[in-house]
Amino acid sequence: MSSFRIGVDGGGTTTRAVIVGGDSNQVLAQAKSGSSNLYNLGLEGALQNIHVAIDGALEQAGGVLNQVESFGFGLAGVTGQHEKAQWLTALGVRYGASIAVDEDVVAALVGAFGPDELKNNGGAVLIAGTGANCFGQNQSGQRARADGWGPMLGDRGSGFWLGESGIRAAVAAIDGAGASTPLSGYLLQHFEVPDLNALVGVIYAPTFARDRIAAFVPFVLQAAREGDAVSAQLLSEAGIHLAATARAILKPLGLEQLALAGGLIENAPEIRDSLANSLPGIELLQPRYEPVVGAALMPLAL
Amino acid sequence: MSSFRIGVDGGGTTTRAVIVGGDSNQVLAQAKSGSSNLYNLGLEGALQNIHVAIDGALEQAGGVLNQVESFGFGLAGVTGQHEKAQWLTALGVRYGASIAVDEDVVAALVGAFGPDELKNNGGAVLIAGTGANCFGQNQSGQRARADGWGPMLGDRGSGFWLGESGIRAAVAAIDGAGASTPLSGYLLQHFEVPDLNALVGVIYAPTFARDRIAAFVPFVLQAAREGDAVSAQLLSEAGIHLAATARAILKPLGLEQLALAGGLIENAPEIRDSLANSLPGIELLQPRYEPVVGAALMPLAL
Repeated sequence: MSSFRIGVDGGGTTTRAVIVGGDSNQVLAQAKSGSSNLYNLGLEGALQNIHVAIDGALEQAGGVLNQVESFGFGLAGVTGQHEKAQWLTALGVRYGASIAVDEDVVAALVGAFGPDELKNNGGAVLIAGTGANCFGQNQSGQRARADGWGPMLGDRGSGFWLGESGIRAAVAAIDGAGASTPLSGYLLQHFEVPDLNALVGVIYAPTFARDRIAAFVPFVLQAAREGDAVSAQLLSEAGIHLAATARAILKPLGLEQLALAGGLIENAPEIRDSLANSLPGIELLQPRYEPVVGAALMPLAL
Repeated sequence: MSSFRIGVDGGGTTTRAVIVGGDSNQVLAQAKSGSSNLYNLGLEGALQNIHVAIDGALEQAGGVLNQVESFGFGLAGVTGQHEKAQWLTALGVRYGASIAVDEDVVAALVGAFGPDELKNNGGAVLIAGTGANCFGQNQSGQRARADGWGPMLGDRGSGFWLGESGIRAAVAAIDGAGASTPLSGYLLQHFEVPDLNALVGVIYAPTFARDRIAAFVPFVLQAAREGDAVSAQLLSEAGIHLAATARAILKPLGLEQLALAGGLIENAPEIRDSLANSLPGIELLQPRYEPVVGAALMPLAL
């Protein structure tokens, strides 16, 4: 039996670990734990959750530790050389020298194309979930990124952007200042309030969780599918925004293929269509592997 | 000498009191104190600041209390009959029966047109500062309001909206996803950061004060005046948004005159021009009196 590779996808809320093996990089075991964000937990706390996830995957696989060939860590927030060096040192103590550490978008990119295709032809991955960003690398190894700046600065065309735009359109319609839309009714339903005065109390409360904004997206999709022109327009605009972010990466790197990832694009073919229309000549692909498998394959991609 | 009227304009940060008198409703004395927002301070705390402001104005005028004919209170947050009754009772203890209490937009409306003109012909006032709203009343006494929903739900075309739009455009340009604009440089200058990574640390810090978003507006104005097309477009869009909000009030009430108030419109003739273009047939006016004088005149307008 061939050797195994361990991949870790570490984010702000969840850390996932997988063991992959075989010619087709199958996932043989997997486990998860809490956040591995350096800035929320500190290095020791983040490290602890990484260990828990890896131990869980190893336990599930049943004692193959001496057969693990390499470890790959795709971790949120590893944007500078300083963080990378800090992690390499800390992880090396337990996992030896065959480790690769990079930020989570690199794992997503390696997973999207596979290490060989990425090395030979380059590629970019557009990730649109609650946030939105694009990351790419060309044949020369040049990298570029765009967006991922969060809901107040950017994340143009993301789930947050779409939820916020839908909510604002719903309010404008109630005011009589914007076109009428079923989003107005869905807004009060989503936040379980009788009117906008009550909604103000919910939205501006110190305890308001911003993820409830992106959670409005399913209503925008539903309204569009019921024929609402306001919602259809917002889906189209989301695709145009995402296309502009992707173009900012594809063009300077000379790339012609883009992998699409993230919950928003998966759930909204309308956004994908708008994106495709805005990127003529670009081949749009489904990611070959998920990001955590990409993390396991990172040692092969360098 | 004629009698005097006291007006109070109570907001979330400042409470102002004036004494007006004479045929032209001159301001004879004025003073200010802290917030009189019921929801921040409770009734007792809010009441205390109102007393302080009135006492200050009376002291400045030199003992005219027995000549005060009426009191008018325009208070933020007095949107329902419940709040109004609560305030009437609490204020009546000290200021007697000749009092009028209403929300701050009513004081702005009465001030904008004067009590007689408002009673005879009706009117609406569009207030665009950090927030944006429109409030009107017609000859039959029918009232309507639009927007004022705050930065996350509405305030379309407000200072917050313009600051946020300018910041997002600046970030998009840095990403290479939006048109190039001098706003990118101004953004880093305004927040005193070397790059977007550092800006992320500032904007998403728990201590970040949202008024720094609206404080970016002067840079948008400066860039537009230096010939930046991105900024000019945003000023035009702000006017279009504000016009839609005003139209939602003017049309159902059958009004044809709109007073313009608030720092944003005063400082940006570009926005005023865009607004005027979007409201053909509507007469745009400067407010006749400021809102706190409107508060003093509220007892004459009922």
